[in-house]
Amino acid sequence: MDRISAMAKAIKEPDRSLMERAQARLDNLTKPPGSLGRLEELAKILVGITGKETPILKNKVIFTLAGDHGVTDEGVSAYPKAVTAQMVYNFLSGGAGINVLARHAGARVVVADMGVAEDLRPGAGLIVRKINYGTKNMTKGPAMTRGEAVKAIEAGIAIFEEEFKDGIDIACTGEMGIGNTTPSSAIAAVLTGKAVSEVSGKGAGICEEALLKKIAVIEKAIAVNKPNPDDAIDVLSKVGGFEIGGLAGIILAAASKRVPVLIDGFISGAAALIAYKIRPMTKNYMIASHCSVEKGHRIILKELGLEPVLDLDLRLGEGTGAALALHIAEAGVKILAEMATFESANISKKVK
Amino acid sequence: MDRISAMAKAIKEPDRSLMERAQARLDNLTKPPGSLGRLEELAKILVGITGKETPILKNKVIFTLAGDHGVTDEGVSAYPKAVTAQMVYNFLSGGAGINVLARHAGARVVVADMGVAEDLRPGAGLIVRKINYGTKNMTKGPAMTRGEAVKAIEAGIAIFEEEFKDGIDIACTGEMGIGNTTPSSAIAAVLTGKAVSEVSGKGAGICEEALLKKIAVIEKAIAVNKPNPDDAIDVLSKVGGFEIGGLAGIILAAASKRVPVLIDGFISGAAALIAYKIRPMTKNYMIASHCSVEKGHRIILKELGLEPVLDLDLRLGEGTGAALALHIAEAGVKILAEMATFESANISKKVK
Repeated sequence: MDRISAMAKAIKEPDRSLMERAQARLDNLTKPPGSLGRLEELAKILVGITGKETPILKNKVIFTLAGDHGVTDEGVSAYPKAVTAQMVYNFLSGGAGINVLARHAGARVVVADMGVAEDLRPGAGLIVRKINYGTKNMTKGPAMTRGEAVKAIEAGIAIFEEEFKDGIDIACTGEMGIGNTTPSSAIAAVLTGKAVSEVSGKGAGICEEALLKKIAVIEKAIAVNKPNPDDAIDVLSKVGGFEIGGLAGIILAAASKRVPVLIDGFISGAAALIAYKIRPMTKNYMIASHCSVEKGHRIILKELGLEPVLDLDLRLGEGTGAALALHIAEAGVKILAEMATFESANISKKVK
Repeated sequence: MDRISAMAKAIKEPDRSLMERAQARLDNLTKPPGSLGRLEELAKILVGITGKETPILKNKVIFTLAGDHGVTDEGVSAYPKAVTAQMVYNFLSGGAGINVLARHAGARVVVADMGVAEDLRPGAGLIVRKINYGTKNMTKGPAMTRGEAVKAIEAGIAIFEEEFKDGIDIACTGEMGIGNTTPSSAIAAVLTGKAVSEVSGKGAGICEEALLKKIAVIEKAIAVNKPNPDDAIDVLSKVGGFEIGGLAGIILAAASKRVPVLIDGFISGAAALIAYKIRPMTKNYMIASHCSVEKGHRIILKELGLEPVLDLDLRLGEGTGAALALHIAEAGVKILAEMATFESANISKKVK
């Protein structure tokens, strides 16, 4: 916990005075003030986060963390548990959605085993930080011990710090874990105070009947474990997941290094909530990349006070929405750095 | 008009059977079916438009057409008329928003003078297709003659065809013209049947009082000219603009060559309405890149039956929203072409 507290304490306010200067520059570029909308807003936020007058987003890193979930024994998912490991191999061989979109965005993908239920064959680029062979079935007791929850967050911090040595200008969160919308809904319900039914959706594609069962499973897990909403680590340990804890660590570490983080979808959102509850200041370093189809994502974003950049009916995870938003974030900083001013281009200003 | 009719007739249905095959392939990629939402939809549309199983969007061209508007005499704009020409020079020297975003997207910008009010200094890459030195003040009679309206559309067709020789896999519409939200609102009102006040906004940033005046000016222009809503060329000539006619020509020409067109904002939307009314089939070749802040854009998109890809509070024009959406369209076709299938990656399928 000391490591996490130290990390959380290291997170400072974004640079507000640099943000004001960025605003002044944006208003003097050859366009009506504010007419590039969210691009301008993103540029300003990225200036504040990085503390650089014209940030450059060259090193783009997507952290795709994998873990399994004991609660899949309750039949909450549309896919068999074995798919988590199979998809990790797919990430490593470059055939998954996130690989395609990362290449398209010019980003590298960091794949980590945070708690897949089987031992994975060693593969080029696979980081193994296995906390355990999947979480326990949270309807029968806590998903993991408190010690494991702390270890998961610390592992995320360590993964980020190791990768940071090669340079990270912007980070994206992503995940893979069959069944992981279930713990994410549980976390969202506990930390936002909403009813489980309001934050639970069909995940990878279960039917209406299975959704009702999933809601009952989550309600039972919360009733059995009584997670303490004022203690994010308690919530993570009782109804969370190893990859979710790892992502919370990634977010905290990024914020402490003044690296902006594009938060992907619903599961990443649950991890962001954990990081936010550990240190509210962290939210200033988050950019909500998109709004997922998964019910409850909008509620998480509202709790974090974040407005999504994209809304493309995505519900895949892996970091795919965040990878797509990289292009928009980069567009913002390029506008700031490359556009002519009214003076330099000899253009008349507004008359009314 | 013969040239336009021939072009319109050359527009055929997208290839529906190829679209079905694309859907089958999308459903077999390593992700829950439909989980990449609009990326999958875009991939399918682009297959149908291009008639290619795996379209490649290498040659990306943004057509930024400029023209002036006599109606600015009525004080409808926040900027002086001279800015149209000044911004054309800015486009040619690479300092405008569209230049930055085109470079970011790997697209080339084609700049054409369709009717700027002054003679422009010849510049590298400037295409001169000046129909006239700005339109006439449409509150006192038609903005242009019917012959000029036909010439504007034909010029757009010619600009596209000339550029097509160098290859165009996807086209974007863009424009510059001080005052051009005014004719666009007039076109939108006439062609959608909505009240002028419902389709008129603050353009580059006029105040509330000036907006009321702008609405009165548009209402007067419509009352004076009585454009015939069943004759798009009549509407263009009476309350349109040269760059708007040019863009309608670009869209018709692109559709006839099976080239997808990303429609930019409100003014591009008015041009898309003109093209659609000339040949309704054209809308199958349009992709709405974004939803502008400009009031009335959503009404135009609804009339065209298009759902915008992005919603970033943009209101700049020039083609900036279309340039940003290029990345998303490309992401869709890359998903289709590059992702592994369940079989190739050895991944278990859905169980429920």
